[in-house]
Amino acid sequence: MACNLAQKLIRTHLAEGEMRPGTPIGLRIDQTLTQDATGTLVMLALEALDLDRVRTGLSVQYVDHNLIQADHRNPDDHLFLESACRRFGILYSGPGNGVSHPVHMQRFGRPGQSLLGSDSHSCAAGALGMLAIGAGGLDVAMAMAGEPYRIAMPEVWGIELTGRLPDWVSAKDVILEMLRRHGVDGGTGRIIEYHGPGLDGLSAMDRHVIANMGAELGATTTVFPADDAVRRFLAAEGREAAFDPVAADPDAGYDVTDRIDLSELEPLIARPSSPGNVVPVREVAGAPIYQAYIGSSANPGYRDFAVAAAILKGRQVDPTVSLDVNPTSRRLLVSLAQADHLSTLIRAGARLHQAGCNGCIGMGQAPASGRNSLRTVPRNFPGRSGTREDSVFLCSPETAAASALEGRITDPRDLGSACPDIEAEPPVTRVAMTECPPGSEAGPGVELRKGPNIVSLPRFDPLPDRLELPILLAAGDDLSTDEILPAGSEILPFRSNIPKIAEFTFSAVDSSYPQRSEEARDGGGHAVLGGRNYGQGSSREHAALAPRYLGLRAVLARSFARLHRANLINYGVLPLQLDGAAQSLERGDLLCLEGLREAVGDRDSIEAAVKGRQQRISLQLRATGTEREILLAGGRINLARAA
Amino acid sequence: MACNLAQKLIRTHLAEGEMRPGTPIGLRIDQTLTQDATGTLVMLALEALDLDRVRTGLSVQYVDHNLIQADHRNPDDHLFLESACRRFGILYSGPGNGVSHPVHMQRFGRPGQSLLGSDSHSCAAGALGMLAIGAGGLDVAMAMAGEPYRIAMPEVWGIELTGRLPDWVSAKDVILEMLRRHGVDGGTGRIIEYHGPGLDGLSAMDRHVIANMGAELGATTTVFPADDAVRRFLAAEGREAAFDPVAADPDAGYDVTDRIDLSELEPLIARPSSPGNVVPVREVAGAPIYQAYIGSSANPGYRDFAVAAAILKGRQVDPTVSLDVNPTSRRLLVSLAQADHLSTLIRAGARLHQAGCNGCIGMGQAPASGRNSLRTVPRNFPGRSGTREDSVFLCSPETAAASALEGRITDPRDLGSACPDIEAEPPVTRVAMTECPPGSEAGPGVELRKGPNIVSLPRFDPLPDRLELPILLAAGDDLSTDEILPAGSEILPFRSNIPKIAEFTFSAVDSSYPQRSEEARDGGGHAVLGGRNYGQGSSREHAALAPRYLGLRAVLARSFARLHRANLINYGVLPLQLDGAAQSLERGDLLCLEGLREAVGDRDSIEAAVKGRQQRISLQLRATGTEREILLAGGRINLARAA
Repeated sequence: MACNLAQKLIRTHLAEGEMRPGTPIGLRIDQTLTQDATGTLVMLALEALDLDRVRTGLSVQYVDHNLIQADHRNPDDHLFLESACRRFGILYSGPGNGVSHPVHMQRFGRPGQSLLGSDSHSCAAGALGMLAIGAGGLDVAMAMAGEPYRIAMPEVWGIELTGRLPDWVSAKDVILEMLRRHGVDGGTGRIIEYHGPGLDGLSAMDRHVIANMGAELGATTTVFPADDAVRRFLAAEGREAAFDPVAADPDAGYDVTDRIDLSELEPLIARPSSPGNVVPVREVAGAPIYQAYIGSSANPGYRDFAVAAAILKGRQVDPTVSLDVNPTSRRLLVSLAQADHLSTLIRAGARLHQAGCNGCIGMGQAPASGRNSLRTVPRNFPGRSGTREDSVFLCSPETAAASALEGRITDPRDLGSACPDIEAEPPVTRVAMTECPPGSEAGPGVELRKGPNIVSLPRFDPLPDRLELPILLAAGDDLSTDEILPAGSEILPFRSNIPKIAEFTFSAVDSSYPQRSEEARDGGGHAVLGGRNYGQGSSREHAALAPRYLGLRAVLARSFARLHRANLINYGVLPLQLDGAAQSLERGDLLCLEGLREAVGDRDSIEAAVKGRQQRISLQLRATGTEREILLAGGRINLARAA
Repeated sequence: MACNLAQKLIRTHLAEGEMRPGTPIGLRIDQTLTQDATGTLVMLALEALDLDRVRTGLSVQYVDHNLIQADHRNPDDHLFLESACRRFGILYSGPGNGVSHPVHMQRFGRPGQSLLGSDSHSCAAGALGMLAIGAGGLDVAMAMAGEPYRIAMPEVWGIELTGRLPDWVSAKDVILEMLRRHGVDGGTGRIIEYHGPGLDGLSAMDRHVIANMGAELGATTTVFPADDAVRRFLAAEGREAAFDPVAADPDAGYDVTDRIDLSELEPLIARPSSPGNVVPVREVAGAPIYQAYIGSSANPGYRDFAVAAAILKGRQVDPTVSLDVNPTSRRLLVSLAQADHLSTLIRAGARLHQAGCNGCIGMGQAPASGRNSLRTVPRNFPGRSGTREDSVFLCSPETAAASALEGRITDPRDLGSACPDIEAEPPVTRVAMTECPPGSEAGPGVELRKGPNIVSLPRFDPLPDRLELPILLAAGDDLSTDEILPAGSEILPFRSNIPKIAEFTFSAVDSSYPQRSEEARDGGGHAVLGGRNYGQGSSREHAALAPRYLGLRAVLARSFARLHRANLINYGVLPLQLDGAAQSLERGDLLCLEGLREAVGDRDSIEAAVKGRQQRISLQLRATGTEREILLAGGRINLARAA
């Protein structure tokens, strides 16, 4: 049978199950990627699992998320990660090296291989024909320990690309068009596979832009074939030997199909505060801006910075605009300096920041109150910039640079200048990246360096047979993990300290939650009520682990975002779906669940009494056998330790 | 009579008094410099003074201290400062332009002029033959309003320089030698004047290094003559017209003298945690380091970065070391990129940070717990890096770069390589700096842009004739302004919001103080009891203004630190000295002061009854006539408004 690329990649990595959409499968993982915001928990999990050495072919730990060292906590985390890398046989890419996804693609990307990353944008490596999936840290830790990664077999969504992008329109506008058409949950349960003649006009790094923000569609991942563009990319990296021409069979079909004529696209922009709020730039043109922000894993390529420099060459940004330039990596900084783009950007008025994720995840560069910020980053969830009630727009580097020049949102076609012709990146000179120090001590004898803020993972009890759970909080649709547990420079430094970071759980939604959950803990815990697409966004498992620490035993929602649902299960929290009468539940209700172990063991439906209402409702638990085992054990670490 | 340069500069700016050491003088101020950490209060003071336009020849507001925009507060402060600059006729140098002192020297330095800056390192401009002094914000605001700056006439300390610096020894080692000899209070009450043939080997920017850290000696300021080196510097800036060959008369004498043979110096280093703990590098060589830090106003020149690049060229720093490079300015970034030094540093493993003060004032780049950090910055006070119990050493860029290569403290002479010959800075290309937007609205009609965290200065009442003051708090000797009002990343963002920052007053000493003082406010306020040297340390005026806001009317202490005493008076708080029977006062006592206006008007002694004790005590008020006027008016702003 003719297979599409996604199916081929899954077939070659299938460890368990059958490739029927919706049924559970287990995937063999070749590579893992972790970053510092999620990686310290991964390392603490490996410690809890008593692992000797990772069993993957390649595992890399990046430090890119939280580079602001306001006190000892972040640098202590870096030293902890470095020591854990030496202990468990992981490559360590230190602070300053750059953003994990583009760096990983450049240094380690391999067509045909699988990658599991504890970052929701790990799917970016699909640009090279990899099966690259973002997951919770514990899933990545288990993959490092040699376990398959288990998901439901996704549908494959074929997107045929035709035509060529017009002047002033670039890869970011392609993924914004996808979001305009399909919204932030359009990709749920699907792998997006791009194919067709339109690929010829897209470089490997352009495809990274599109694959990266597949996360914003809710897709399991995105894949592109490994064609000549990928071969050229690997050759330029001096790694042509890694090339493998993986592609769909010529007559392959797709579960779902769509088509984009690239030549019909125009500059697009996502309005605040969702990546799904996409409109043509011209629809919002003229609004004054405070900030134009270039960088992040969503526009990480040389061309993304070079095109901004070309637009700004010999000119000055509007003096009221903060032009924040966030280089992707040490290597990109050198390339931009060699080609004089760095000086051009600085002369034009740029604030040049350290290579890393920075403001994209709220680490600095927050906009002023009530001012518009235009960013090339992948997400504009409310408050993610660090400023409450922020007004962040997502756009291409062309639109950001044009708007910086004018001081207001500007369609780059309206600049009246010729569209820049971006030259190739200067030959890649080897910029050595600090990795696991060669010659230094390695292996199980290495002591983990734990600063005073690094605390081993809490232990949780198995699922009891009876739970009485007050509903402490009710949230609406599309609640993101940023709202469940905000990132930002105040909170993220506690990422290796669950008791402490738990104090900030739901602080953006209801600051009384931590205290109220503490009060309910003695009674056996509590539940939280959500809407549709509960837990969208970032993969950070703190959003499951911290409320679990506070006594969360069940989330009741209309539907769950894939990654967050897996994190809830990994830490023993029941993800229960609401339908029928259960939709009338509200904050303050008291649920009584009995015979729970038997129900969770093998039933799709769990009965609950709503105290005081004389009402019985039915909650859906759609879970695989493995997931049920994890829930019964009280979490995945408990289950693994029992084995 | 033959005059030294310091005397000449004072004579040409003398508005009041006589030039006898120790007697009060008033100085006419030509230029002012403010930075963002102190500048917002300065602008709020100008607003309270109802000033139309600054009366100085030139006033510049820099944004360089707190560039981490974790939320809306910092960017709101930037917009506020920019609007205030347009309103009051001040030049605005926005975030990213660079560190105030070197940028000011390059753009605006003028031999023979006076400069008052609300930053203790403002004295750096003495490198060009300016009379440049650091002061509290309200003093700088009053200078902007045209008032003389009042101090006691300092002694002049002549340091004769002979010989030439050996290979691997640079300007930083000269000022470290001064600190080694004289300690952190060796310059108190003095102006340091360098002269002699040794000057020939020191560029204007080398002199900046030495003048800048005169602050660490406790000196009022430092001056260098404006000789050929200064002429060359100004010519390279395209400002030769600003040159004026100010110098001491050939046969001038000094109140105190010393001499340094530059040829005898060796690489020096200040051990933790005082700039006065200076020893030869070789004495501490071999200790492993976590961090090597290049940058700050203490080593801001092109050569300081170029020499580090030359040492690191084609090599890699030890993989365990964080090499943090903090460029001085946008302009320096371009110069370093043009000369390929930027790529060299990045290739060697540097983390390149935004141009600004950054880690020097604890804004990021904190070292890990228990690890050594080598820095080219001016200060290593305990915890200033952001990490409690930190271990920060101060050294030259040569020593920092050599140590980064080796991973341990290294005398650069022991590298075994040839001492780099640093080329001249590439021709200065005009890197436009964002300043007050030309063409935008300016003048008194400009509305001050106040974000939600920016609050106008509170108004205070004049001194009443009768006060009944409970003593709410009793402190010991040497209480520092850090204990009166802590800084840090939690509290400093409230710098423009006195009601809010007041909640943290004395929080390190007695957390109930703010509430108890609120309760006493209706009764007319309260007093605080101190020991010797009350208010030592940082000059921050919040330590006077915030308790005044809470109702503080008098501090009773054995003695006062000079700067804090001036700040208390500026905000209308009586600094009363205790002796005799008054020393038996304690917390809880209730003081009754009557006939206060007459007493403060012209008496050295103020009588008070201690209620309930049937005791009368005598409190000392030693103050100049101007200070008494300020106290009677209820503060300096009230006095100015009444005039």
